[in-house]
Amino acid sequence: MARLSSIFAPKDREFFDMFEEAAVNGVRAADLLDQMLRGWPDTADLAREILICEQNGDRITHDIIKRINETFVTPIDREDILELASKLDDIVDHTEEVADMLGLYKIEAPMEQAQRLSHILLQSTRQLAEAMPRMRDFQDINHYTVEVNRLENDGDRISRDAIASLFDGGIDPMVVIRWKDIFDGLEAAIDATEHVANTLEGIVIKNA
Amino acid sequence: MARLSSIFAPKDREFFDMFEEAAVNGVRAADLLDQMLRGWPDTADLAREILICEQNGDRITHDIIKRINETFVTPIDREDILELASKLDDIVDHTEEVADMLGLYKIEAPMEQAQRLSHILLQSTRQLAEAMPRMRDFQDINHYTVEVNRLENDGDRISRDAIASLFDGGIDPMVVIRWKDIFDGLEAAIDATEHVANTLEGIVIKNA
Amino acid sequence: MARLSSIFAPKDREFFDMFEEAAVNGVRAADLLDQMLRGWPDTADLAREILICEQNGDRITHDIIKRINETFVTPIDREDILELASKLDDIVDHTEEVADMLGLYKIEAPMEQAQRLSHILLQSTRQLAEAMPRMRDFQDINHYTVEVNRLENDGDRISRDAIASLFDGGIDPMVVIRWKDIFDGLEAAIDATEHVANTLEGIVIKNA
Repeated sequence: MARLSSIFAPKDREFFDMFEEAAVNGVRAADLLDQMLRGWPDTADLAREILICEQNGDRITHDIIKRINETFVTPIDREDILELASKLDDIVDHTEEVADMLGLYKIEAPMEQAQRLSHILLQSTRQLAEAMPRMRDFQDINHYTVEVNRLENDGDRISRDAIASLFDGGIDPMVVIRWKDIFDGLEAAIDATEHVANTLEGIVIKNA
Repeated sequence: MARLSSIFAPKDREFFDMFEEAAVNGVRAADLLDQMLRGWPDTADLAREILICEQNGDRITHDIIKRINETFVTPIDREDILELASKLDDIVDHTEEVADMLGLYKIEAPMEQAQRLSHILLQSTRQLAEAMPRMRDFQDINHYTVEVNRLENDGDRISRDAIASLFDGGIDPMVVIRWKDIFDGLEAAIDATEHVANTLEGIVIKNA
Repeated sequence: MARLSSIFAPKDREFFDMFEEAAVNGVRAADLLDQMLRGWPDTADLAREILICEQNGDRITHDIIKRINETFVTPIDREDILELASKLDDIVDHTEEVADMLGLYKIEAPMEQAQRLSHILLQSTRQLAEAMPRMRDFQDINHYTVEVNRLENDGDRISRDAIASLFDGGIDPMVVIRWKDIFDGLEAAIDATEHVANTLEGIVIKNA
């Protein structure tokens, strides 16, 4: 398959550079959220750095779209480039949303399950960052997508347990509403990594 | 149109076998949830059988992806196979989520509107299971998609009425939060059947 | 590019007429919701007119699908026509949902941030209605999509501030649950305009 990638002009290969940059940006945002939740509330300032990741993600997406418009022959279908760029961006968007909620909701102490979920998110973004270079020559990425799916399943169970514990009794409804929202946000971020994995799988299936 | 399907190799036709299997699995999960809600809480054990449907759905999806990778010429576009498989899987995922919530939230008695929604879900999955064999030769499935859309509209109205009744006064906020989540889950499952209907319609439009 | 559009048969160009009709229908629904929120509760009757927009949207979508089935060569890919029709319809669906919630939840007075969000929704639908005629010959619509994205970002910030204010203290949990739902609905409607902008961008990228 190395043959295929070697026939791309250097300019075309820059799409893959940008996808890798977006994936690494996702790892960075997830890593910051993970640190943030482990040290909360002393780590509240990290929200600003996650916001920078989010803006960086927007910039990368914008660069990718600009590049599609300037490129005559793209290494993968234009609509697939657009879809992958957009789904990668969703990861950082949801991560930033969770970071912001911790402050908005004036959370006092982190729930342990939220810490576990942010760690799962970090692991899942790392899988994507490892899979991404393999896209250059449409190598099999099954190993990574299986792992992302497994992590998502784990996250699902943790999230359900956490929500059940919120209803176990004696907790202020306003606290329940806040934390349900945060768990929903963490799940959405983890789901976004699974959507990227599915998109990668679709692209490999189409091009391999 | 029978001409078209007859030129597919038997191996290719297995995609349609797997789609039908997934659709029947959806009917089974919806049927179990319907029984569960009608008899709740005596039927709590059915959650385990719905979980088996959910795992069965994952297995079918995985088989379909494996088959795409092994097949040189697919009867419909690879990305459409992947999309249909993924959307069929969503039905069972949301159905299982609702079944699980009944236990997680320690629901004491089912709301009547939840029973009506699970019955709508069951009818909608049955429409899909009837439409699916017609995909083999891209026959018109308009009759089924119209019916799925009609059911979704009915469900929407029931769900809104149910939520309004939760706010009519005197209900504990914690009970409201729980039931809103269950109604959202039921709506998501019914929406998932509509997404499958839309995907089927798109595939027929592309291939007929 | 005028060359391209001029080779379409008049019948094909009717797809663009229908997209424009759907976009204008979206502006009308958003305009009504904007009026409704500014004058609430005296404007409660406008919900019925928004419902008519929603039914009108369903009719347009149905007409588009019917036309795809009757047309041999479509001006853009069939699946893109279907996706654009479906995403345009989402705008009106979410708008109608918010209008309905105001009544269902027996809202007494509108929150100022909800008024600002409905105004953003209106501006965003107007951008889409202006961009739509440019689709006929796949002109650059970057100006409009950038503006829709900017509006969505503004909306996001307003929505977050509003939700934070709900948690600032002393507000009845039942009121918080209601308003969170309304803000979610407004955000979903604004997100739907962004999804249409992304779809338009994808279609231009593919066809220009």
